[in-house]
Amino acid sequence: MNKKIRAIQFGCGAIGSAVAKLSSRRSNIELVGAVDIDKNKVGRDLGEIIGMDGKLSILITDDVDKILAKTKVDIVFHQTSSSLKMAAPQLIKLLGHGVNVVSTTEELAYPFPAQRELSAAIDKVAKANQVTVLGTGVNPGFLMDSWPLFMTAVCQDVEKVRVIRVQDARPRRLPFQKKIGAGCTPNEFQKLVDTGTLRHVGLTESIAMIAGGLHWKLDNVTETIEPVIAKEKVQGSDITVEPGQVAGVRQIGRGLRGNEEVITLEFVAFLGAPESYDSVYITGIPSVEVSIRGGIHGDIATAAIVVNAAHRVVEAPPGLLTMKDLPMVVCTAKV
Amino acid sequence: MNKKIRAIQFGCGAIGSAVAKLSSRRSNIELVGAVDIDKNKVGRDLGEIIGMDGKLSILITDDVDKILAKTKVDIVFHQTSSSLKMAAPQLIKLLGHGVNVVSTTEELAYPFPAQRELSAAIDKVAKANQVTVLGTGVNPGFLMDSWPLFMTAVCQDVEKVRVIRVQDARPRRLPFQKKIGAGCTPNEFQKLVDTGTLRHVGLTESIAMIAGGLHWKLDNVTETIEPVIAKEKVQGSDITVEPGQVAGVRQIGRGLRGNEEVITLEFVAFLGAPESYDSVYITGIPSVEVSIRGGIHGDIATAAIVVNAAHRVVEAPPGLLTMKDLPMVVCTAKV
Repeated sequence: MNKKIRAIQFGCGAIGSAVAKLSSRRSNIELVGAVDIDKNKVGRDLGEIIGMDGKLSILITDDVDKILAKTKVDIVFHQTSSSLKMAAPQLIKLLGHGVNVVSTTEELAYPFPAQRELSAAIDKVAKANQVTVLGTGVNPGFLMDSWPLFMTAVCQDVEKVRVIRVQDARPRRLPFQKKIGAGCTPNEFQKLVDTGTLRHVGLTESIAMIAGGLHWKLDNVTETIEPVIAKEKVQGSDITVEPGQVAGVRQIGRGLRGNEEVITLEFVAFLGAPESYDSVYITGIPSVEVSIRGGIHGDIATAAIVVNAAHRVVEAPPGLLTMKDLPMVVCTAKV
Repeated sequence: MNKKIRAIQFGCGAIGSAVAKLSSRRSNIELVGAVDIDKNKVGRDLGEIIGMDGKLSILITDDVDKILAKTKVDIVFHQTSSSLKMAAPQLIKLLGHGVNVVSTTEELAYPFPAQRELSAAIDKVAKANQVTVLGTGVNPGFLMDSWPLFMTAVCQDVEKVRVIRVQDARPRRLPFQKKIGAGCTPNEFQKLVDTGTLRHVGLTESIAMIAGGLHWKLDNVTETIEPVIAKEKVQGSDITVEPGQVAGVRQIGRGLRGNEEVITLEFVAFLGAPESYDSVYITGIPSVEVSIRGGIHGDIATAAIVVNAAHRVVEAPPGLLTMKDLPMVVCTAKV
């Protein structure tokens, strides 16, 4: 960590902007480029696009090959899609250029059992080019997988792991409120579920990471999703939910051994949740109950963990790694 | 982790016994020897000494050189002394035999700033023999250092870290209650402090690990220790404390940058504490408040973390490592 990490921002949406803003403030990182395919962003200054006061003197390009051919880059912060199928061609291209990648593609957080072939292809190109790729974020990547795994260090035995994340969505940004179905009728909610647009991506990956870390063999992994219906009128920052309308979502992932539910991840986000918190319950010797009061703000934390992971990824052995394999990621603001 | 880790138990006191009991139950570990200098233990069966129902067919020896010369050993669980000065000759001898070591010597958890020369000597012999040595335990090693560090992953910036560990000592074993001064007069307490026998060892090391992990330069580290005086009669498992007597201890370690207290570790253990808990308060972006309800039982957790760390230490690069540098230690009961 003696020299600065030269980084490119790939994807300048909400999360990518948060990552770029943070990395531009870090003294151990030098932001040297930015990529987005949006024609309205290409050619404009990154600082302007991500909502900074001043310019960053970095023009957004849509030509990845060109910028990587002419610029020395250590790492790419990749924030484009939740879907590994969508992201994989981008990742493979980046790795092929011999740059490390930290991606917030949720399905990359622990892709091995669900997407075996894509994982193997990504791992292969990373190793061939002697670089490392990590999928991370606050969830998946931390709250529902690496944090509970970390807490099992003090356990002589573990029987079950349960994690619950409850978020009051009232103060959150509108896209988040819409994403959880707030203001829909129950029928509209179901349609959004059926088309796959209303779903937190990552429960399956987090379950797989916990099971992988603990060397548990699961027989089945399931996910359910249902609306939280408002009992009374709820006012959000940008939206009002009437009684009987959907206030948000309750999504539960379950990992089963035989008929026994050994991993339970409960993602609850709705306007009017009386309290936000993140809790881990480990049943074992000893049992451990640990809670984050007020919960963790997703966007702020995801940007943090991506940027904090940068030097670990640069220093790591080549290949597709996950949070459970990397040495501890900590805040690197003072590095 | 395809083959069993062959382990020797070095030190068969309270913690060593807990470690040996746990490692003897683990299918990924094969306990192949035991060492203690106590003449009352030498020649007797380890299972009997550590309070197991059956024998382990392992005779305790006081001849480390002999057992390591004739036995193939991957790792030694080392539980003898809090003091690095006391433990260092043992550690150097073990490492010289080319075996990895997980030690609960508190001052080894992060020894670099406080004991530079001893640390360098231990690191050197480990590297020369291509083996790894780790100092760990629940505290230091987890609750007041690696856990708060781990939680900073979600922070864009960190200004201060405060950890408080509160333990109601009523249900604990008598040696623990005596160690915290329970039942003493305030004068007797002060004498125990003055002779250095009443002191939780590790606050300085935990402060140094947090500062090291966050790349903070501290100007000063201080420790204070004071009695908690019983206001009313308190009944412990083996001891009764009268009003005006000492019920336990409050020890505070502080890490300062200039005059600013940026790290505060508060270790509180007394008979009659209304609640046991472990809490981390990170002041930053975002601030994080996280608590373990009921706290973590020290002996159970220390045995767990030592045995859980075994395969990480066997796989790690050579040298003197600390918890902040190792890939995540998790429960390995099902490995």
